[in-house]
Amino acid sequence: MSDGFPLLLTPGPLTTSEATRRAMLRDWGSWDAAFNALTASVCKDLTAIVHGEATHACVPMQGSGTFAVEAALGTLVPRDGKVLVPVNGAYCKRIVKILEYLGRAHAMIELAEDEIPTGERVERALDADPAITHVALVHCETGTGILNPLEEIARACVRAGRGLIVDAMSTFGALDIDVAREGIEAVVAASGKCLEGVPGMGFVVVRAEALERCEGNAHSLALDLHAQWTYMRATGQWRFTPPTHVVAALRAALDQFAAEGGLAARGARYRRNCDALVRGMTALGFRPFLPAALQAPIIVTFHVPADAAFTFWALYEKVRARGFILYPGKLTRVDTFRVGCIGAIGEDDLRGAVRAIAEALEEMGVRSAAAAEVAVAG
Amino acid sequence: MSDGFPLLLTPGPLTTSEATRRAMLRDWGSWDAAFNALTASVCKDLTAIVHGEATHACVPMQGSGTFAVEAALGTLVPRDGKVLVPVNGAYCKRIVKILEYLGRAHAMIELAEDEIPTGERVERALDADPAITHVALVHCETGTGILNPLEEIARACVRAGRGLIVDAMSTFGALDIDVAREGIEAVVAASGKCLEGVPGMGFVVVRAEALERCEGNAHSLALDLHAQWTYMRATGQWRFTPPTHVVAALRAALDQFAAEGGLAARGARYRRNCDALVRGMTALGFRPFLPAALQAPIIVTFHVPADAAFTFWALYEKVRARGFILYPGKLTRVDTFRVGCIGAIGEDDLRGAVRAIAEALEEMGVRSAAAAEVAVAG
Repeated sequence: MSDGFPLLLTPGPLTTSEATRRAMLRDWGSWDAAFNALTASVCKDLTAIVHGEATHACVPMQGSGTFAVEAALGTLVPRDGKVLVPVNGAYCKRIVKILEYLGRAHAMIELAEDEIPTGERVERALDADPAITHVALVHCETGTGILNPLEEIARACVRAGRGLIVDAMSTFGALDIDVAREGIEAVVAASGKCLEGVPGMGFVVVRAEALERCEGNAHSLALDLHAQWTYMRATGQWRFTPPTHVVAALRAALDQFAAEGGLAARGARYRRNCDALVRGMTALGFRPFLPAALQAPIIVTFHVPADAAFTFWALYEKVRARGFILYPGKLTRVDTFRVGCIGAIGEDDLRGAVRAIAEALEEMGVRSAAAAEVAVAG
Repeated sequence: MSDGFPLLLTPGPLTTSEATRRAMLRDWGSWDAAFNALTASVCKDLTAIVHGEATHACVPMQGSGTFAVEAALGTLVPRDGKVLVPVNGAYCKRIVKILEYLGRAHAMIELAEDEIPTGERVERALDADPAITHVALVHCETGTGILNPLEEIARACVRAGRGLIVDAMSTFGALDIDVAREGIEAVVAASGKCLEGVPGMGFVVVRAEALERCEGNAHSLALDLHAQWTYMRATGQWRFTPPTHVVAALRAALDQFAAEGGLAARGARYRRNCDALVRGMTALGFRPFLPAALQAPIIVTFHVPADAAFTFWALYEKVRARGFILYPGKLTRVDTFRVGCIGAIGEDDLRGAVRAIAEALEEMGVRSAAAAEVAVAG
């Protein structure tokens, strides 16, 4: 427990620091110069995190990360454009669903949930279909926690001359993305993930040159990234009421991000969290869904035990009573649950969570945490 | 100043209470039962404020109020529908702009900024054009502060059998709206206005029967009100990451709203604020843009003084230094500025603001606050 409330071992909203939450204790006028300066400094820092200072602009967007993903797709992909989506999980499918709503043509590379798209496969798909204008890639597919190979896919896009839009919702600030070096058109993320702010705003770091060509593409006034950017450039203000307290919390979170040592330190802490979690859970008998080589240090999917005494919701309640919130699985074909490694937490917290899970299993009378398939295979 | 930061005399974000801000000092899991209960209780209270318990549902929406307005229009108006918009200010024009983005047919009743649409005029327009399916009305047009006659327009819509969608952004919680008695299809508002929460979520209180017919209308995944409602009904959860801290702040703000005495008390306090403001400013020589009969107790537009020593931004800076944030005008043809009466503030605060304005005028060497037109007319 932190200050009497449970730690969130989820992919966001996640546990924030007290300093970040305390930044919400004042009100801000959305027309005031002090708030405009806050917004500008946040955008500058977000652009720098993905090395876009010379080439890219950061456009913030009210709402959850999905709002920013939709804004990016709706604004950057022309109405007669076509998007290739490698699909290996729920968030990839959400992109396809957005494209269906928008009426934008699209094609999929359909993969198993533990299979990654390769640069070669993307390149083949691009060569085969010249109508494709963009590729939309989920960096870490939080449905499983799988890390997709961003750099080789980015290179395939550059070689084929197509725009790459990256949903980096759960990796931005923790895993390095270099938009300039890799020629990435846009990276989308949100306040409440690895930056450890509170939820309530998304943002798109987008190549200014690409954004300039986008006037009139958007299907939505609220989600028109070009209009948001144009207005903000001219006035320093958001077009519509900004989530002022969320922006102030993100500013505080970015200060702590810098103080921690930036992306390298943040990523290393999450890696230690992930290692402590996987080690502890494996020792209890749990089996991760993904092989270690494909696992991002963000969220880990575990098979549920085959033992009939086990139910996820009983585990959830018992572990919650001990101060930790777990996350349900999102796979359709295999019964799983997830434990997040991100947020203002350290490896001791993850060890504490593993102890709480062990105690809960004992209370439930679960004698083995081994998954069904293991039992069958063994 | 409140705790060292200026009071916001704006139409939102506005000044909140410390209790509301302190509600953001804990994190919430968006899948957790405790947070689902928070969301459900907020939605229940919001529905009750406009007397919709028996007929209407409250669907929350991430983002600013404009996101909720767009969600309501995009979801409730069928693709072959047509919307009549009485236009007497900037927020009415914004509705028209949304309809243009959505590709929904629309017609306007064009009015001067100090002229209100009447029920009779709306009825005539509806009789003349059977293609119109909906009327979209801004209750208080914050561009000027004018109060549009909701009830007579609602009755015209009921008589003509058309749906009425009300943008009650700046009146919800302060001026009474009875969706059941007046047969209103939907009322749209947001967390950060008269409910005195922080900005970051909007909501639509909508007749359940109307919402049920709306599947497939929406142009946007994120802003699909029907999908948001369906998912929330089935799971108790938001479809996409909710602004958890904003929701918690709204819960605290609603508790204070009830403790104050609900809508009647809230509206009466704003009326006292407005009276204190107008009395004080008139005594200084300022002239309100609207006649008293059309003025909502939300935000007051004043003509700028004709005196050459006056500039709004100098006034803004000097009044800000004294602890109050004013609001620029939004009229195209007349030079004005605005002062809000809403938020966690009382008449003493408004009197303090008037004193600060008087001192600022003196410092600027403004000898008369009389407006140009008065000077010409006199």
